[in-house]
Amino acid sequence: MERFLKEAKDGSRVLSTISGSKKNSILREMANELRAKTKEIVQANTLDMADADKNNLSSALKDRLLLDESRVEAMAVAIEEIAALKEPVGRVLDGWITEEGLKIEKTSIPIGVIGIIYESRPNVTSDTAALCFKSSNVCVLKGGKEAQHSNKAIAKVLQSVLTKNNLPTALISLLEDSSREGVAKLIKMDKYVDLIIPRGGAGLISYVSQNATVSVVKHDKGQCHIYIDKDAKLDNAIAIAINAKTQRPGVCNAMETLLVDKVIADNALPKIKAEFDKAHTELKGCSKTRAIIDVKEATEEDFDTEYLANILNIKVVDGVDGAIEHIVRFGSGHSESIISEDITTAEKFLGAIDAAAVYVNASTRFTDGGSFGFGAEVGISTNKLHARGPMGIEGLTTYKFKIYGSGQTR
Amino acid sequence: MERFLKEAKDGSRVLSTISGSKKNSILREMANELRAKTKEIVQANTLDMADADKNNLSSALKDRLLLDESRVEAMAVAIEEIAALKEPVGRVLDGWITEEGLKIEKTSIPIGVIGIIYESRPNVTSDTAALCFKSSNVCVLKGGKEAQHSNKAIAKVLQSVLTKNNLPTALISLLEDSSREGVAKLIKMDKYVDLIIPRGGAGLISYVSQNATVSVVKHDKGQCHIYIDKDAKLDNAIAIAINAKTQRPGVCNAMETLLVDKVIADNALPKIKAEFDKAHTELKGCSKTRAIIDVKEATEEDFDTEYLANILNIKVVDGVDGAIEHIVRFGSGHSESIISEDITTAEKFLGAIDAAAVYVNASTRFTDGGSFGFGAEVGISTNKLHARGPMGIEGLTTYKFKIYGSGQTR
Repeated sequence: MERFLKEAKDGSRVLSTISGSKKNSILREMANELRAKTKEIVQANTLDMADADKNNLSSALKDRLLLDESRVEAMAVAIEEIAALKEPVGRVLDGWITEEGLKIEKTSIPIGVIGIIYESRPNVTSDTAALCFKSSNVCVLKGGKEAQHSNKAIAKVLQSVLTKNNLPTALISLLEDSSREGVAKLIKMDKYVDLIIPRGGAGLISYVSQNATVSVVKHDKGQCHIYIDKDAKLDNAIAIAINAKTQRPGVCNAMETLLVDKVIADNALPKIKAEFDKAHTELKGCSKTRAIIDVKEATEEDFDTEYLANILNIKVVDGVDGAIEHIVRFGSGHSESIISEDITTAEKFLGAIDAAAVYVNASTRFTDGGSFGFGAEVGISTNKLHARGPMGIEGLTTYKFKIYGSGQTR
Repeated sequence: MERFLKEAKDGSRVLSTISGSKKNSILREMANELRAKTKEIVQANTLDMADADKNNLSSALKDRLLLDESRVEAMAVAIEEIAALKEPVGRVLDGWITEEGLKIEKTSIPIGVIGIIYESRPNVTSDTAALCFKSSNVCVLKGGKEAQHSNKAIAKVLQSVLTKNNLPTALISLLEDSSREGVAKLIKMDKYVDLIIPRGGAGLISYVSQNATVSVVKHDKGQCHIYIDKDAKLDNAIAIAINAKTQRPGVCNAMETLLVDKVIADNALPKIKAEFDKAHTELKGCSKTRAIIDVKEATEEDFDTEYLANILNIKVVDGVDGAIEHIVRFGSGHSESIISEDITTAEKFLGAIDAAAVYVNASTRFTDGGSFGFGAEVGISTNKLHARGPMGIEGLTTYKFKIYGSGQTR
């Protein structure tokens, strides 16, 4: 693996010399080449699908794994959209002249070599490769064993375009060692790899975070809350809560627990229950909630569970301070929202809650690169440092200071 | 330790509610209290000095350890300067309105709990505590055993001001467990600690980087180069080289290797040697260098050594490409400089070199917070992510997105 990663590292120097227009034309070639090789890719995918049958994968997993003509077309379109993004490298982020007359330019540059560890969806292979290439980063892709034939076929197509353009195939590297040991080695290779992005289940992410010596941007648990304050417009509040829970329960920015101000609980909870019943949401409540509406009991463990399903905890709290208290204890720092017309209460919540995205009067479901207007999304980071929250392609850059002098000494 | 760190974590919520003017008045009180307790601090320091004698510490180390009246006064002044800095928390870093009409504000916030692991100099205790307090971060200070009495005395003074202001002493925590095991535990406490900054020798930094599960901002080796191009003004070039090597050889932004374009080597090297001889610099050279001037041999190992002393490697290289080649191989990503009047050559160097600070026509010695105009310096980061290069107090903040809606759902 070391030789392999050394080639990737050397490749990052080559990549940093390629102009933006050249990168974009290569990306468009890649999109077209994926279209031209649809048959080969779908054929490779049938091997993975056969393995999936053999291994009794769930139908949800099989759906994520499946590639057909329209999904390959979607992969090609995604690459074209990435080609159309603004050049992320070379942006002057800040600049000033020092007392000694040195002109300092803080400039965005690629991170270098980025390792992506992911599972099932084979389109991650082409999406990630394109995002990294666009930002002049070499990617080392480590896909799941279940998608190995599809991933190999996709990488082969992308690499063939690199070769046609006299570029090393190492710029888009696919790690074929699908073993756990492969991951264990990769995340310790700080000599060659500058960043690891694990995309997958909680087990993978925790393993990588605890063992990597390379920097990690992780996409972890979303234990999101909405707090309905006594000064909320109740209709607004209920509509937002329904949206945050039920529009797509299986994603990280969906709400898991609804907090209700005790002052309005008697009036609000029956109305809340009526709407959630229509949406077939399974409700669980604290003892105060259950004194007002008939729902199952929510345990401490429930308040700590990311259901990723149409299940909701409800808790009656003592005003905004009670809501903050609960979120400090159970929140995962992803997305939290207060529904209130009172500006002082709202600002208190916005100030006190430490999460990537803190909302007033809106659904937590807006925490993603698309809704934020980032064009393409690398992921939603739950890191506190480097990148936090929705991560656009700029999240794949770092910076250096360029300093222009005229003979200055100290 | 866990209970101790939990108090620190809880303290970070308290700290985030204190206004800027209150923080500044507390900092000024701390400065005055240090002055008032000079005698006690100097007395505690004599215990450390006695231990230093017993343990035969070098005179350089003893000088770093020593506190007298003027050094305590300098610590107080440093705190007052930190109080005078612009408020680092609550800066709106970016802002926009999304297509759905959500107003997004990207706002700077404290990182949370910052662990600082450092050696000898006791003034680091007050400097770091003040920088963290100013940026609303709780600090967990882990000083060296050799300065334990001084550190304890300083922390006691700062904590007494916290107590007078009804604040928990945990906001400025001093870890009294000076053992290696104490460090080993601290750097794995990602549940309570958000960032570790190790300040000390290479051994400490490497140990922390390899074993921490908490994010680390490190201040590592500075293997800095200056390349004199054929299109340099030679007088300028020599003055810069002399400055970068000899003005303060023991620091990380000092030059370790001088690269000279082969086209001008015959003419330039004798002049370079004459000036460095005046500065009593010990010169070592590659074989091409030694064919022109009489110096010792520079080995591969020498090119990889941060001397931190008045010793310099010289290498003759094949133009800017040869210089880039050498720096890619031996540079540590700290500070690199090209001396050239040719704009195309200079920009090639500025673009190709991946280092925190890349200079044209200036000394590498300018890489620090003071020269960059940052007011106070937290350190010089050799990380590639989060903070890179000179790190002002803003380096102790991260951000969150505040999102203002009016009932939006998805």
